[in-house]
Amino acid sequence: MSRTIEVTELALRDGHQSLLATRMAMEDMAPACADVDAAGFWSVECWGGATYDSCIRYLNEDPWERLRTFRKLLPNSRLQMLLRGQNLLGYRHYEDGVVERFVEKSAENGMDVFRVFDALNDVRNVRTSLEAVRRTGKHAQGTICYTTSPLHTIERFVDMAEQLKELGCDSICIKDMAALLRPQPAYDLVSGIKERCGDDTQVHVHVHATTGVTMVSLMKAIEAGADVVDTSISSLSLGPGHNPTEALVEMLQGTGYTTRLDKGRLLKIKEHFASVRPRYAEFESKFLGVETEIFDSQIPGGMISNMESQLRQQGAVDRLKEVLAEVPRVRETAGFPPLVTPSSQIVGTQAVFNVLMGRYKAMTGEFADLMLGYYGETIGPRDPAVIELAVQHAKKEAITGRPADLLKPEWDELRRQAGALPGCNDSDEDVLTHAMFPQVAAKFFATRDKGPKNLGSSPTAAVAQPVGGGKPNGGK
Amino acid sequence: MSRTIEVTELALRDGHQSLLATRMAMEDMAPACADVDAAGFWSVECWGGATYDSCIRYLNEDPWERLRTFRKLLPNSRLQMLLRGQNLLGYRHYEDGVVERFVEKSAENGMDVFRVFDALNDVRNVRTSLEAVRRTGKHAQGTICYTTSPLHTIERFVDMAEQLKELGCDSICIKDMAALLRPQPAYDLVSGIKERCGDDTQVHVHVHATTGVTMVSLMKAIEAGADVVDTSISSLSLGPGHNPTEALVEMLQGTGYTTRLDKGRLLKIKEHFASVRPRYAEFESKFLGVETEIFDSQIPGGMISNMESQLRQQGAVDRLKEVLAEVPRVRETAGFPPLVTPSSQIVGTQAVFNVLMGRYKAMTGEFADLMLGYYGETIGPRDPAVIELAVQHAKKEAITGRPADLLKPEWDELRRQAGALPGCNDSDEDVLTHAMFPQVAAKFFATRDKGPKNLGSSPTAAVAQPVGGGKPNGGK
Ligand SMILES: [Co+2]
Ligand SMILES: [Co+2]
Repeated sequence: MSRTIEVTELALRDGHQSLLATRMAMEDMAPACADVDAAGFWSVECWGGATYDSCIRYLNEDPWERLRTFRKLLPNSRLQMLLRGQNLLGYRHYEDGVVERFVEKSAENGMDVFRVFDALNDVRNVRTSLEAVRRTGKHAQGTICYTTSPLHTIERFVDMAEQLKELGCDSICIKDMAALLRPQPAYDLVSGIKERCGDDTQVHVHVHATTGVTMVSLMKAIEAGADVVDTSISSLSLGPGHNPTEALVEMLQGTGYTTRLDKGRLLKIKEHFASVRPRYAEFESKFLGVETEIFDSQIPGGMISNMESQLRQQGAVDRLKEVLAEVPRVRETAGFPPLVTPSSQIVGTQAVFNVLMGRYKAMTGEFADLMLGYYGETIGPRDPAVIELAVQHAKKEAITGRPADLLKPEWDELRRQAGALPGCNDSDEDVLTHAMFPQVAAKFFATRDKGPKNLGSSPTAAVAQPVGGGKPNGGK
Repeated sequence: MSRTIEVTELALRDGHQSLLATRMAMEDMAPACADVDAAGFWSVECWGGATYDSCIRYLNEDPWERLRTFRKLLPNSRLQMLLRGQNLLGYRHYEDGVVERFVEKSAENGMDVFRVFDALNDVRNVRTSLEAVRRTGKHAQGTICYTTSPLHTIERFVDMAEQLKELGCDSICIKDMAALLRPQPAYDLVSGIKERCGDDTQVHVHVHATTGVTMVSLMKAIEAGADVVDTSISSLSLGPGHNPTEALVEMLQGTGYTTRLDKGRLLKIKEHFASVRPRYAEFESKFLGVETEIFDSQIPGGMISNMESQLRQQGAVDRLKEVLAEVPRVRETAGFPPLVTPSSQIVGTQAVFNVLMGRYKAMTGEFADLMLGYYGETIGPRDPAVIELAVQHAKKEAITGRPADLLKPEWDELRRQAGALPGCNDSDEDVLTHAMFPQVAAKFFATRDKGPKNLGSSPTAAVAQPVGGGKPNGGK
């Protein structure tokens, strides 16, 4: 049963996104790249998610330039990105032509592996991007967002894996953003996918560490046949981040499973980020410990903070407990969507509305869209009475088709708009930046020539490299 | 294969010892006790280790009074302590009469479970205390200190378990103070003990979290048949501490293994310590992340800090790398002792001497004693040439017998000494306090009537209890 387990390193994207609010400057990642490139990872996640937004919003850095820089600094690595299917990296559905253009440009600039997901697990919302990836010859990874609800059975997830496989995906990823994947379901889900889709189906497992159980889930996923697991170097790990890369290597020793990772390189990467991390202390997540409440509450920590601040603005923070109790009801009404961006915000805000103004007396436009199918299909039926209220509120009908089918070609118009912005260089890349973040892009184009900012404190102060083991791993 | 896994809660002793330098005041633990008592633990570790020392050294608190208080506050719980065999809670070997008196008094004051270990795994050093425990009718737990070396095979550890079983131990504990126990050896070791000593041998597993792999080791130990595992409530967990109790409960769901723990109670315990912990921030361990270097270096982080500060005092901190390389050699010379108090300090200081003054040109008295057998037997042979140097240095011969056999009865003399100290109340308990910490005890007896100190900052400021999930788990 000896088998090589491949690893995707997350430090350059999800690691600092989860722990340091995506603020890490390219110049603080660059010095680690030679070691990352030589360490033996299956892939290096370094783009997508919130990094694109953060680059133009906070760092005055061109995200496409960042991608090209990673391509140069990691010549032997597969570069990997996270893509929100038809939403690309933005917050609305884009017409297929824009989606295709984005994928082509990403591939052209150096991307190798596209991990594509939809917040509702509606396969129709990932089809266009996955097909576009396949046409570029790059690696198309179909993704299952893991969540729990009375309807989310292993069987249903395996059904979804099969659908993704039928779309021609090169691999299947189980993405557990809320650290809800316990060891036994991890085992059952990986086994189920391997059984249904074939043993040669490459299965990746992405878990966060928040609940303290998912290192064990990685072990069980590996025992069930998982091929590639995601980890983050120890000095950018744990809390709302991920399990530590070095610990994965050590965990497997003697089990018959091994990685190809070079421990000497890992130590250097660790020490680099341990020296960088303290400079980003002001952006550090407030929740660095273990939180298991989500298993019962079903509510991610970040969502609670959002609802709490909404309540505070209304002078009603004392009603948080009612809102927390309302969330599962709203989620059931909406057909049990996974609670991930953007559905977590949509469900959370509606729960606040319900408590403050009476159940569905007021409705956000986004919640109406969710009820009416404009984000896609949910796993469960949505409450017909509330759909009716949504129709009245939004003054439009429910749909059952693929949302993007309603969209007209928009590339030419986006190009025209972008071209009118001062500082826009008229490249397809700039048009895409405008398409995804219209307001922020305009500001970014205007200031781009000032060059990237480093938001870490005293960025030029070299932090001494510690000798040997037993040093703080950064953070505190 | 459904089976109930029992749990020992560590928050009241090893949890704050590992994370907050053993400084937590009794008044900060008392409010959690009702929930701890009702949560369904197999036992509650609350005494021993460094707590006794910390009570009299820093907190002006009578450790025996603390024990009696826990007895009152935890009427339905097994109270558990950690005992260093013939060293009791001190740093030298005591004559058997003192050891027996200590065990009797501990039982009389409310202790139920005695976890007894020896730093060298020399069973002769735990025999007297284990037999004394058995005579009181309390639970005698024999302990294996887990470590790694070319000689520390599963077979040898299982041999030791068998010897402990033959001493009449009620259970066997695998104690992994440095988080070196990987999943596969955890499985093999528990299986090995169950096979050799019988399936009905109760096996406990105590691991720290430092290396990030031991939650998986707990899972594997459970799969191999472990009966009781040690965890600490999440708000006093991870880093150099332990795996979180709540995560253990969640990890097992769906596996066929279950705990008897009440999640509602656990949440209350968590919230209590989350509110208390920030007040002890100044005592917090600097190493709260994951450190895997020990797997290769064999050197615990705390030991490195010690050696570094010794070198700094000599103006030779630049020679740390040489010292780190010297440690494994010294350890081999000394017969591969586990590196735990006091052997870690003894080996570390000698390594510093060797680098600064030439190999074994100078020798500490403690290292000479270790080489000459005055701490007990080591697993491997000790270097005869260095034993000869130790004989010259210490001007005494090597021994092979049980070290405590050389000691004369000392109780009457200890009682006489203690009785002469101002503030000593002449109880056996006070004599034992004097016996274990002569200098500190004298100071403590003199100030005892001023009552316990709380070293937490603003100890009277009530911290608001957070509502629901997703809050910081303390610490930062
Ligand atoms: Co993630
Ligand atoms: Co311990």
